[in-house]
This record gives sequence, C-alpha cells and structure tokens, in this order.
Amino acid sequence: MSSHPVIELTSPSSWAMVEDKFSPFALETLAKLIKFQTEEVWPALRVAHAQLPDDQSRWKTVIPIIRDLKARARELGLWNLFLSKSHYPQHGVDLTNLEYAVMAEILGRGGHFASEVVNCSAPDTGNMEVLARYGSPEQQKKWLIPLLNGEIRSAFAMTERFIASSDATNIRTSIRQEGNEIVINGHKWWISGAGDPRCALHLVLGKSDPNSSDKYRQQSMVIVPANTPGVKIIRPMKVFGYDDAPEGHCEIIYDNVRVPLSNLILGWGKGFEIIQGRLGPGRIHHCMRSIGAAQNALDLMLARVTDPAKKTFGKYLYEHGTVVADIAKSRAEIESSRLLVYSAAAQIDKYKAKGALKEIGIAKFVVPSMALEVVDRAMQSFGAEGVSQDQSLAQTWAGLRTLRFADGPDAVHIQQIGQRELKRAPEVVKRLDAIKKKETGLFEKYQVKAHF
Amino acid sequence: MSSHPVIELTSPSSWAMVEDKFSPFALETLAKLIKFQTEEVWPALRVAHAQLPDDQSRWKTVIPIIRDLKARARELGLWNLFLSKSHYPQHGVDLTNLEYAVMAEILGRGGHFASEVVNCSAPDTGNMEVLARYGSPEQQKKWLIPLLNGEIRSAFAMTERFIASSDATNIRTSIRQEGNEIVINGHKWWISGAGDPRCALHLVLGKSDPNSSDKYRQQSMVIVPANTPGVKIIRPMKVFGYDDAPEGHCEIIYDNVRVPLSNLILGWGKGFEIIQGRLGPGRIHHCMRSIGAAQNALDLMLARVTDPAKKTFGKYLYEHGTVVADIAKSRAEIESSRLLVYSAAAQIDKYKAKGALKEIGIAKFVVPSMALEVVDRAMQSFGAEGVSQDQSLAQTWAGLRTLRFADGPDAVHIQQIGQRELKRAPEVVKRLDAIKKKETGLFEKYQVKAHF
Amino acid sequence: MSSHPVIELTSPSSWAMVEDKFSPFALETLAKLIKFQTEEVWPALRVAHAQLPDDQSRWKTVIPIIRDLKARARELGLWNLFLSKSHYPQHGVDLTNLEYAVMAEILGRGGHFASEVVNCSAPDTGNMEVLARYGSPEQQKKWLIPLLNGEIRSAFAMTERFIASSDATNIRTSIRQEGNEIVINGHKWWISGAGDPRCALHLVLGKSDPNSSDKYRQQSMVIVPANTPGVKIIRPMKVFGYDDAPEGHCEIIYDNVRVPLSNLILGWGKGFEIIQGRLGPGRIHHCMRSIGAAQNALDLMLARVTDPAKKTFGKYLYEHGTVVADIAKSRAEIESSRLLVYSAAAQIDKYKAKGALKEIGIAKFVVPSMALEVVDRAMQSFGAEGVSQDQSLAQTWAGLRTLRFADGPDAVHIQQIGQRELKRAPEVVKRLDAIKKKETGLFEKYQVKAHF
Amino acid sequence: MSSHPVIELTSPSSWAMVEDKFSPFALETLAKLIKFQTEEVWPALRVAHAQLPDDQSRWKTVIPIIRDLKARARELGLWNLFLSKSHYPQHGVDLTNLEYAVMAEILGRGGHFASEVVNCSAPDTGNMEVLARYGSPEQQKKWLIPLLNGEIRSAFAMTERFIASSDATNIRTSIRQEGNEIVINGHKWWISGAGDPRCALHLVLGKSDPNSSDKYRQQSMVIVPANTPGVKIIRPMKVFGYDDAPEGHCEIIYDNVRVPLSNLILGWGKGFEIIQGRLGPGRIHHCMRSIGAAQNALDLMLARVTDPAKKTFGKYLYEHGTVVADIAKSRAEIESSRLLVYSAAAQIDKYKAKGALKEIGIAKFVVPSMALEVVDRAMQSFGAEGVSQDQSLAQTWAGLRTLRFADGPDAVHIQQIGQRELKRAPEVVKRLDAIKKKETGLFEKYQVKAHF
Repeated sequence: MSSHPVIELTSPSSWAMVEDKFSPFALETLAKLIKFQTEEVWPALRVAHAQLPDDQSRWKTVIPIIRDLKARARELGLWNLFLSKSHYPQHGVDLTNLEYAVMAEILGRGGHFASEVVNCSAPDTGNMEVLARYGSPEQQKKWLIPLLNGEIRSAFAMTERFIASSDATNIRTSIRQEGNEIVINGHKWWISGAGDPRCALHLVLGKSDPNSSDKYRQQSMVIVPANTPGVKIIRPMKVFGYDDAPEGHCEIIYDNVRVPLSNLILGWGKGFEIIQGRLGPGRIHHCMRSIGAAQNALDLMLARVTDPAKKTFGKYLYEHGTVVADIAKSRAEIESSRLLVYSAAAQIDKYKAKGALKEIGIAKFVVPSMALEVVDRAMQSFGAEGVSQDQSLAQTWAGLRTLRFADGPDAVHIQQIGQRELKRAPEVVKRLDAIKKKETGLFEKYQVKAHF
Repeated sequence: MSSHPVIELTSPSSWAMVEDKFSPFALETLAKLIKFQTEEVWPALRVAHAQLPDDQSRWKTVIPIIRDLKARARELGLWNLFLSKSHYPQHGVDLTNLEYAVMAEILGRGGHFASEVVNCSAPDTGNMEVLARYGSPEQQKKWLIPLLNGEIRSAFAMTERFIASSDATNIRTSIRQEGNEIVINGHKWWISGAGDPRCALHLVLGKSDPNSSDKYRQQSMVIVPANTPGVKIIRPMKVFGYDDAPEGHCEIIYDNVRVPLSNLILGWGKGFEIIQGRLGPGRIHHCMRSIGAAQNALDLMLARVTDPAKKTFGKYLYEHGTVVADIAKSRAEIESSRLLVYSAAAQIDKYKAKGALKEIGIAKFVVPSMALEVVDRAMQSFGAEGVSQDQSLAQTWAGLRTLRFADGPDAVHIQQIGQRELKRAPEVVKRLDAIKKKETGLFEKYQVKAHF
Repeated sequence: MSSHPVIELTSPSSWAMVEDKFSPFALETLAKLIKFQTEEVWPALRVAHAQLPDDQSRWKTVIPIIRDLKARARELGLWNLFLSKSHYPQHGVDLTNLEYAVMAEILGRGGHFASEVVNCSAPDTGNMEVLARYGSPEQQKKWLIPLLNGEIRSAFAMTERFIASSDATNIRTSIRQEGNEIVINGHKWWISGAGDPRCALHLVLGKSDPNSSDKYRQQSMVIVPANTPGVKIIRPMKVFGYDDAPEGHCEIIYDNVRVPLSNLILGWGKGFEIIQGRLGPGRIHHCMRSIGAAQNALDLMLARVTDPAKKTFGKYLYEHGTVVADIAKSRAEIESSRLLVYSAAAQIDKYKAKGALKEIGIAKFVVPSMALEVVDRAMQSFGAEGVSQDQSLAQTWAGLRTLRFADGPDAVHIQQIGQRELKRAPEVVKRLDAIKKKETGLFEKYQVKAHF
Repeated sequence: MSSHPVIELTSPSSWAMVEDKFSPFALETLAKLIKFQTEEVWPALRVAHAQLPDDQSRWKTVIPIIRDLKARARELGLWNLFLSKSHYPQHGVDLTNLEYAVMAEILGRGGHFASEVVNCSAPDTGNMEVLARYGSPEQQKKWLIPLLNGEIRSAFAMTERFIASSDATNIRTSIRQEGNEIVINGHKWWISGAGDPRCALHLVLGKSDPNSSDKYRQQSMVIVPANTPGVKIIRPMKVFGYDDAPEGHCEIIYDNVRVPLSNLILGWGKGFEIIQGRLGPGRIHHCMRSIGAAQNALDLMLARVTDPAKKTFGKYLYEHGTVVADIAKSRAEIESSRLLVYSAAAQIDKYKAKGALKEIGIAKFVVPSMALEVVDRAMQSFGAEGVSQDQSLAQTWAGLRTLRFADGPDAVHIQQIGQRELKRAPEVVKRLDAIKKKETGLFEKYQVKAHF
C-alpha cells in the first residue's frame, strides 16, 4: 500500500481513487501540510484559546501564537493553497481543486485557527476570489495583495436582519451614488470576521437599482473600509453559547456610510453575478473541512472507547451496546461523503464551478448533516465531558450546525437537486417508450403473450 | 462535458472521477454494452418472463429469447466481462475491476437476465473464478471452458439448513474419501441456480476433517456433476412470493453422492481458503448491480411523478409532499454509494482483494440498504401498481433484500469494519499524546494558562 | 401487576393506561379471544394454507378449517367484535372502539385468517358499516344480515386502473340510471375479496353526475351482486409475488352491468359521503392489526436470537452486534404506536370519527412504517429463512407494505396532519404577541434592559 | 370537545386518554398552572435573563423577578406539585404521577426558571424526595422543610471527574468516620445547582466501605452544608458554551470536608439504595419537561413558517420543501412520546417505580432524542437566528442534549430494555412449541400436508 502520510493519518479508503490525480508538487505539499499541522498547529490550538482573554478585550486581540504560526506557514510555502492557479493564473497556487480538497480536510481537523494559519480561512478566501476575479487593478493592489499576504483580514456583508436573506432579492440595504461617492445604508448581521481587529474591509452587498425589472440586476457590491465613519458594529451574534472571538459574527448597521465610487466592484448591477461566482469552490472547502472535523471526532472517539480509565462494568466502552456499529457507520459515512466532495472537486477541475452545480449541491446538503451525526456519536461516547469546554466536540458541532443554513439552507439545495434531476424525466420517458415499442415487436416476433 | 453514452443514460456525477482511469478499449466496450442493453436486452425482459411457463414446466425451460441474446452478446464481444485479465491472465478480459464495476451497474438495471446474456451472472461468475484460480487443468477443461462458453451453468452449494451457516465452521455436510471416490452427505438450501436445466455442476463445500484443530482446515470443496445419483433437489425456496425460476434457490439433499477423487478442488482442507478467495470481486459485482437497480428505480420514479395521467388534485405527483426531496436524496445516495464501490474496485485493482477488505466490507453493508430505500421510494410513487406484477420494482426489492444477509449478514460486516477501525486506536492515542506533550511545551513557552 | 392474559401474551406497557377503561364484559371477551386465538386459531394457520390448493382451483376453495373455526367462534360469542354498539345500536356489540382496538391487535398477530374466523376481516367490516349506517331496510335484510352472519362475503370496488384514484374525483366508472335500472361501466383493480367463491356483492363507486359543479356530489355507490352479467374478473393482482387467494385483489371490468334501482345506497350523489364515513374506525383496525403483526414478529425474533441451534462463532445471535438494541427499539416503537392508536380509538369513542381525524391520520402514517421496520428487523435475524415460505414474516411484510398507500398514501396523510397543525399558527402567534406585550411591561417595571 | 385550557394550549391528542384519570383538584390545578405560566412566568423569562449580570457577579445573584414569582406561585398553591401524596403522605401534594406529568410538560415549555418558580426544579426535587423518604426527623427539619419552603436550594454530588461514573461502583470519593465526624475527600464535577448563592447543602455520594464484597453496599450518602470548610468550587462546566448561571454545573473538590455523624443518610452502605430510589419519577419529570420543550419549539416553528416577513421567492416558508411534512412528523413524534411517558407515569401510580422500570427506561431513551430532533427542525426553520441568543432554541437543544447521558447514557437504557425484553423469550418459545404441537395434531386431523 502507498506510504503517503495521509494514509497514516486517516487511512482514507478513497486514496486509491485520487492518488493518481495528484501532481508530485501536490503530493509533497500535502505531506508538508500534514507534518506542519500535526507537529506545530494542533499542539498550538489550546494555547491560542488560552491567549484569548476572557473579557471584552478578546475582541481587540491578535493571538500571538497564531501570528507566529502564520509566519512559519508562509516560510514553509503552505500559503493560499485554496487559490487554484488554473482558475487564477496570476495569483494562484499550482494545485487543482481536488488536490486542495484533500488538504482542506486536513485543515478542517484543527478548527478555524488551523485554516487561518495557512491563510485559507473564510471569509477571506471567498473575498480574495472575488477581488482576484472581479477587482480592478487598483482594488487588487490595495486590498487583494495585503489579503494574499495575510496582512489584513476582511468581511463579507450580505445577510440582513429582519428579512429572509437566503433569497437575495429580499435584500434591503441601499447602495446609491451621490456625486463621486457611494452612500450605503443597511442593517446586516452574521457578518463573520468583522469583529477582528485586523479586519480592514467589508464587501457589502446592497440594492442599487431596487426597481429594475431584472431582479438579478438590482444588486451591487462595494468595498467598505472597516474604519469608515458610519460602520457601527452592534454586537457579536452567538452560535449556541460561543461568540467565536476575535472574528465573531457581527450585527452591523451601515449608517450613511460613504466610500469613493472606485470602491464599486465590477460595475453597477453586478452584485448578484459576483455572489454567484463566489460560491462554488468555497462550498467544497466548507465540506472538506467538515469532513476533517468528522474524521477528527471519530479519532477522538476511537481513543475514548479504548481508554482503560473509562471502563464500566468491567468492559471497555467499545465492548458495550452499539459502539462498534456506530464506529463502522461513521467510517462508512465519512468515506462516502469524502468521495462525494472529491467528485465535485474533480468536476470543477474539469468543467468549472458552473459545470459542477449538481455535484456541489449534493455535497452541500449531504456533508454537514453527516458530520453532525458523526460528531454527535463521538460526543455521546465522551458523556458530559463531550459537551463541555474540555473537549472541542461541542464547539465543532455548533459550527457545523450553521452550515446547514449558511450559503442557503439544506432545503434550498435539496429542492434544486431534485428539480435538476426531474429535468432528466423527458429523456427517461423517451427511452422507456423506445423500449416499449421494441418490446411489442419482440412479443410479436416470438409469438408469445405476457402473463397477467 | 464528456459525451459518452453513460452520461446520457444516468448522468452519473462520479464519471469525472473515473473517466481518466478507463482504457480506450474499456470506453468502447462500455458504450457497446449500453447500446446492446438498451436496444436489445431491456426490450426483451418481459418477453423472457412471458416465455417462462406458469406451471411446473417452468423449471425445465431454457428461455428462447435469452438463448438468442447470449449468442448475440458473444458475437458482439460482450462476454465474460467480469473476469479481469490482470487477475486471470489466461482466461480474463482486458478490463480492470473498476472498468467492469461501471459495466456491472448497467447490467444491474435489467435484472438477472441482463447479466446472464453476457455470461456475467452469479453464481457462475464466482464459480468460474474458483475454477480459473484453483482448478486443475483437467477440471478447467471439463468445467471451466464450457462455463466460459456459456454452454453450461453451475451452482455453489454452501448454505445449510438447520444451522447458522454464516459461520462456516458450523457446516455439517460430510465429505470423505472412500477408495478412489469422494462420498458426500449433507442437507443444503438456498442453492441458487441448481434448478436450471442447464446446471451441470455443483461446487459443494463440506467437512472433510471435522476434528482438525485448525478450524479453517476442516473444510474441502468438491465438484459434483448435477446428474450424479443421490443429488436430490427437494424444492425451490421462495423469496417473498418469487421462486426465481428457472434458476431458483433450491433445497438439496446430497445422499451418499459419489464422485471421483479428481473432483476435489485444490486439495484436502482447502475449502475455507477457496471460499475466502471467491468473495471479494463478487461482492463488488453485487453492489454495482444493486446500484444499477436503484438507478433504474429512480428513473422509473422520474417518469411516474411527471406522468400527466397520474395527477391528483390538479397537480403532478412531483408537486406533492416530499417527492422532490425524495428524488434529491435518492440521487445523492446512489451517487455516494457508486463512489464507494468504485473506490473499492480501484483498491482491488491496486492491492488485490486482500488489500481492499475494508473498502469491500463498507460497500457490502452500505449499498443494499441504500438500494432498498431508493427502490422503496420509487414503489411508493407507483402506489399499489408498484408492488404488483405489472412493475419490476417489488421483485427487484425482494432480490435486493436477500443481499442484506447473502455472503454474511450486514451485522457481520459492520462489526468487522468497526473492529478494523478500532485497530487504528493505538496510533491515534500515540498521536494525541505527542500533541499533548508539545502543547505542554507551548504553554510554557508562551507563558500562558488554559482557561478552565 | 394485573394478571390478565394480555399481560402474559405481550406484557404491553400500555395496559396500565387502558385497563381502567375496559368494561367487565370487554375484559372477559378479550381473555376469551386470546384463549381462542392461541389455542385454536394460530395452530390452524399453516393447516389452512395447506388446504388451499397450489393450482388455479385455489380460487374456488372454501378452506375447511377456516369454516370450522368460524362456527366455533360464533359459538363462543367472538363475532363481529368490530361493530361498536354505541355507533351501531341495532347490530353492534357492546364494545368501545378502544376495547376492540386491543382485540384487533390480537387478531393481527395471526394474519388475515385470524380476523376472518371472528368475522372481523376487511373489506367485509367496512362494508357492513356502510350497510348498517346507510343501507335501506331492504338492503340490510338482503345483504347486511348474511354478512353479519358470516354466510357471504363482499368486495369494495373503488380503486381504478389507469388513473390516480387516491383522488376520488378522478374516478371514471360510470353509473347511470336507465329506466328502473342502474347501468355500470368501469375498470377497477385491487378489489380485495372479489376472488373469493363466497363473495356475493360488490359495493361499487362510480360517477353518476360527472358534470356536477360540486365535485363531492358527482359520485354514487351501488350494490352489485357478484354474479351479475357483465362483472368480469380479469386477474388477481399480486403483492410481492403473493396472490392472497382465495380472496385476492382483483382486476375487474364492469361491462354494462345492470342492477335494479333499489341497489343504490343512500341516494344519488352520496358516494363521497359514504366513503368518507367508511374510513375512520377501519383505519384503526388496520393499525392495530399491524401492531399485532409487529409484536408477533418481535416474539419470533426473541425466539430466534435465543435459539442455541443458531449460534455463530460460539455466541447466541442476541450476543452479536446491535441485536439487543434492535429489540429494545422495536419494543419501544411498538409500544408508542400502540398508544397512538389507543389514543385515536379513545378519541373516536368520545367524539366520533369526525372529531378524531388528527389522531386517526397520525396513526395511519406512523404505524405501517413502524411495523415494516420491526418485521424487517425480525426477518434479518432469521437470515434467508426469514424471507422464505417457511416463515410468515415476508408475507406479513408485503401485506403491511400495501398499507402505506391503501386508503391514501402516507404523503397525503402527512400533508393533511401538517396542514391541520398549521391551523394552530394564528392562535400561537396571538399567544406569543400577548407574552411579548407583557414582557415589555415587565422590562419597564423592573427597570432592566435585555443583554444583546 | 373538552374545553380545558390544556386543549387550547397544545391540543394534545392524548388528552382523551388521560382526562378521565384526573381528579377535579388536578384539573383545576392544571388550569391554574397554565394560566400562571402563560400570563406571568413566560413573559418574565427574558427579564430574568436580563437581571442576571454579564460578568462574574452572575454567580452571586438571586434574580429578583424569579424571587417574586416564587412568592406568587406559593400564594396560588402552585407549589411542590412533583411530590405525590400517595408516595409521600406527610409532605406530598394530592396529585398522581400522571397528573403531575401533564403539568411538568407545561413547566418544560418555559425552561428551567419556569420549574423553579413552582419549586419543582432539579436537583432540588430529587433531593427533597431523598430527604422525605430516607431522612431522619432531624435531617428533615433542618433541610427538607426549608427546601419544601423554597428558602434554600441544594446540589446532588455524584458524578466524578477522571472516571466513568455512570457505573456507580467506579466512584472514588472517600467517606469515612473519624470519631463523631465524617470526613469526605473527592473530586466531583457536573454538580448542578452548586453554583447558586442559595445552595445550602450537597448530598454527597462516596465510598465508605470500598472493600465490601457486596459492591452495592460500598457507598454511603452524606449531607454536606455548602459552606463547610474544604468544599472548593473549582469552576462551572459549560454545555455548548452555556454556563447556566447562577446554578451552574460545578466542578468541586471535597478536601478533608468534615461533617457531624448525624449527617449520614439512612445508614452506612445505603448510598446505592438511595440513588436507585431517587431515579424513577425524576426521569419522568425530565421526560415531560423535554416534551414541553419540544412542543414549545414546534409552536415557535408554526409561528415562523407562517410569518409573512420571512417569505422567500414569493412563498411562505411552510410552502417550501418538506416543512409541512416536518411539522406533521414533529406533531406525531411529540404525541407518541407524550403517551409513552403518560404510560410510564400511570404505571408508577399503579405499581410504584419498581414496577415501572421498563416503561421508565423506554421513555428515558426515546424522549430526549425525539425532543432534540423536533427542536432541531424548529432551529432549521429559523436559520441563523435559531442558533443565536435571540431565540431560546439553541440553549434548549443544548440542555436536552445532556439528557442523552444524564442518569445513564442512552446505550445503558437501551441495553437494559433489550435484555429485559429477552427475558420474555422462554415464554415465547413455550407458546410457539405449544402451537406447533397442536398444529401437528390438526394436520393429522384434517389429513393434509404442508406445501413446501
């Protein structure tokens, strides 16, 4: 069997399917990433949490050990791995989406900080994609380069309070031109990353032409420097009891915020086009990180159920009830989900995100539920400790839970996939009719009648 | 997007993952197989059933249209596709397990006859593998060649009545040497294929050395010509209400059956080794055919729920309730199962069946349950017609149901996968300990204490 | 604990909930029924199947042992127990729906024949209800009395081929007056009981006024003597290969069938009203019989997994895998379903079927799926034998499967219950608003502000 | 239909089953409780949270509005409703367990504070039961009376860190006599209520005779005044980020804690007996509160999915995807769970907790999972808001999640129920054998042979 470190780490059954598709550079980068994460990042995670103060000053903190690890990652060349050169020739790294998918799983095992240290964390990743694809040279110089360098961070301001913003046409934030300036008024929430002291810009979506007959041309997107007057951060939203400081998910009021006209991205009425273009690969990243979280939970569960200190009634935990079956199911579910996402990534590599909508959509609704289930089983094996601050499982679960509605609730994706599948119906009916017709001929030819 | 006929047939998302692994010969064979099945085999299926009499003479029938299609298939070179040349250089076809897996799904759409017409149906496939791998030249000449030519058929006699034969050490059939002969006595049931008038041989497993201290050396396997005196076919077992004539699943008593010593396969005490070697690829074939059955059921469902004649309360069936969601789930489940089996096939291609036990085991317990679920949803969309003789769904479901215990019940495979996964625990614990140790160093280095 | 035989038979946890609601007569009848079923009926079931010929004459057979048991049941006073005196004062038995529900479970354990021997089998039960409630005195004398006496049997002809007849407005059968006669033309299928040689009448639903603006007044129901010229039984429909002879589920063409005007039930345009009135209690009976089937399957599973002859790898089946957990879940699911149906029966007793629509609807979609699951687990514990003719489980499963669409598919009931629950929304909103208003007052009173 | 307020509040289908079992006093108390909760308690809940400081002083706070509501509840006679007079003649209230079960559901809708204001909140309830059943007159005077009066609160200290304390024989805390004193040393965690400034006593379980051959006689239980020197509260444990102040779930070290000998409850070696006796009704209370939480979540979901402000793509949320089906399922699952717990309560009323172990065990593993599922569906309908501090759902979910291991993990209860059910096997086998024997006789009598 292959001896790549990824085998030692998780022994993924799927490796035989993708190994041949890896370039030597990707194989080497993956190995280096695994070494860096296991030896330097994962031992740093609890330290990072400890460096985050317990009081309000947490929102002003740049965590020292994270800062040090970022420098180290850059030194190692483990940086911006998400940006595929084939899609972003100028700024990208020489990795396919499939190759990065395997790496994103590794990152997902360590939680949010593990992605941040290699400059591969949301929402910066999606924002860099937007600026790299749609930004003007000036915008790229001012915002994209520092983001690519990890010098600043960013927020993506789309979701709004008081409305159902999973339907982008419901957006109420107003974006209008006044002379050489753009004026923004709106009330957003769940703006991830906006709490971070390093957050330098918000990409804000709003309506610039609310009366346009084409409802997909009503929106525009604008770069708002975070320190612009009128940008009022109201409060961090909590996810279950977690505030995810220092980044946070903020409620923000944009109160007569003024930015220069040059901060408009791509042009008036292009907002919807931009958010559509932003979605594909990011969903794959989320999915692979979720799979990493699930795999990590399964590993923790393996350790727990074989822990002699946790024996009850004279037996190891794994000797009780349905634990072995739960482990088998978890393994199978992780493996099949992994393959689904690989398949979507391979599809993107071949046909771009637009040619991979079905594959991305399936992964989007299958993976978070799967990961929640696996993490939940692991929590159960830990008993009360599993839901507490002494283990990462509960916070991981809470984060995964948001993925069942972030970027559109499960139901939306399920309906879209179902509708897309229904489009195959006419072709199927045509085939069945052709079969029926030939069948009739054969009944005649062989001179036989169907049994009732 | 690629234009291979497999895309038109099912538009499998997974194609992007495997396309590159196909040889030009395999691509062409797959296309030819699809054309043959859709244009010649599927229109013949109901005719075949009609040619099978309604009374006891059904057990003596060679169905004319099946016989004709076999000739046609051989002519087209669509023959023995299951036997991979890399494992069986002498008799095999130039296809990998992965390539054949994709083809086996196509075969599975048409039910049992669709496999038979290309000489790829169980139990003949497994029996040919046994004879090709373990048979003496003489045995191969006498039995393997006619089987490869589709001139005769065969049965595999392992399962016994009155005991739990999923544990092969429970086997009671006695196989003993008497002079130059082997004498067999035993009571088997669920012997598939034994009812067929073309069935020429049984591979019979029994105990030749029941007192051996090595319980995996107690068994031997013997070739029993079907017409040997003492071979008494008692009755066909039914699966739900189906008897699967003419092949059937028979109850058989071997009553002082005598065969020449040369009919022993591989040697005394080699029975367990032979049945182990027989299992791997066959399980993959079953799985892929099950996926084909599921995909076919989904297609039938698509046709049904868009049928204007089946509208209720003014709406198409797909506009009601959870139909669209059910279709989306079915699609996702089929896709992820397909990838699991591809992954197992790729693993076999790389590391032989022995190096793919985990992958095969996962597929074995995941796929049949998935397929049952998908077919059940399709049945529900057809209402009462779905469980009747007017549709193939109920019989398909019943056949799939047996796969949850054939070759070992789900529970056995689930336990094995779980136990196998538990073997990773020491490695995981070692890694967690290493992380903990480094973490302690980092807490010291950064002079910080964990929050409680 | 109570010592009633029902405790010994299944030890239903729910007994403590319903015991107090039983009259002394009901307690005694229940005990007598249990004794009769366990000692006389269940030992007769395989004999009855054996008395049914294997060829086409099966459709002309009155099974001797069933006939004898019917006489015996009548003698014991175990007869027509389904017909509650409170709803049918003239013909009914002094049992509430709840009391009969407990008995129907007992009947369900023995399959269809077990109900027939106490004259409590569908479709006769529903037909007797129709005639008792809506029949003219003449109709009652001619048809109801012999049915109540078990001298004849009957069929209910509603479902039609080629349309989606779960929407009764799709019905195409034509019923029109011609002089003193009614003329019926139509194509029905799945007409249970019509195959029985004792079947003397069909209650036929058709459209008498297809152009009526009130689509619930277009239908009428007519009594058609089974031997009327033009009643053509085409074939028995099969359910998973089973034909359920001698009753069968027949395809029937009514070809210019003529009956006297006096055979119209209740009046022109009353067909929909009649079928609505027929549904409530019958659904409860189906549910309770399904629960009996599930409980019986669980019992068989208990016997199987503790059978020393079925040990594998040195352990009882129950010591493997998730068997104990499966048993616990089955027990819990049976128990909660039982309570749901009891609750619906109690609701009918208090508020008639019309006041129990929600309870009946919930039971209708919950119970069959539950029972299928429990029987499926039991089948799995039996391995191949479980799906064969040697055990009752597969046929039981197949019968239960039809209940997921008989009397309306699950989806229809689920939607109705959901919609009915949504009607509570305005009341809920009103309450939440009232709470909010008071809350505002309390914030002021206590001079405190909400944390964000 | 009945017009009791409970019908207006939740229209529980199960009401028809239990109404007759309510005394006039219970009916009136239930109505009064509903009025009090809806009009006074539920509007106060967010105020109570607002009165709890955001910093460490939260652990020293007696919330004013809760204090006021407690006075009001006592005035209304809504007090100690959990303590059934039939089990506790001296201190109890004239309510059966079934009657209180219905009330506990109402309490569960408002979360923890809603139970506290009527002095029915854990762990005080279980502790009062212990003192009422096992306490000496002196202990009752000193601790039980103030608890019954709601003047003090209490903690139950059983669970230990570093071991698997779901197996009570693993307990390590040492309790030994030294002269007239008892000395306690141990390390506990998850001690609910210990953080509260009003907490006056801990009931501490430890080992007094660790070498006893009877492992159920090794434990003793001691009353420890909360302010005893050596009682060191280390930290509050968090549940999904929530600390549940002011009560909290504390980690506590008992470091050479000394109490008088008279603080021993019931006698040396009686600890296990006491904790066993404490469990039954408390589990029912938890279950009913969970059902209340689920019902409340369903109500919130009904309001959300019909909210015109949350329309997407021109349709109400309930018009999308599977929302209606989800609501129907939630309703059905709540209803069947409710009935399961009622059934357990009725069983306790008839046969005490010891005679209701199966019913309690089933409820214990069925209800929390059900409630989690229902609350999760409601969260999903709220999108991100559902997991945030603006709705109660996430905190409710987190609390419910702990019930899958509190008082023993699901797996333990599932195994116990399964094993208990297996005890029916010999009886079943005996019955099946008797049937078989009679069957053989009938085959002879009727001179018929079974079909194969």
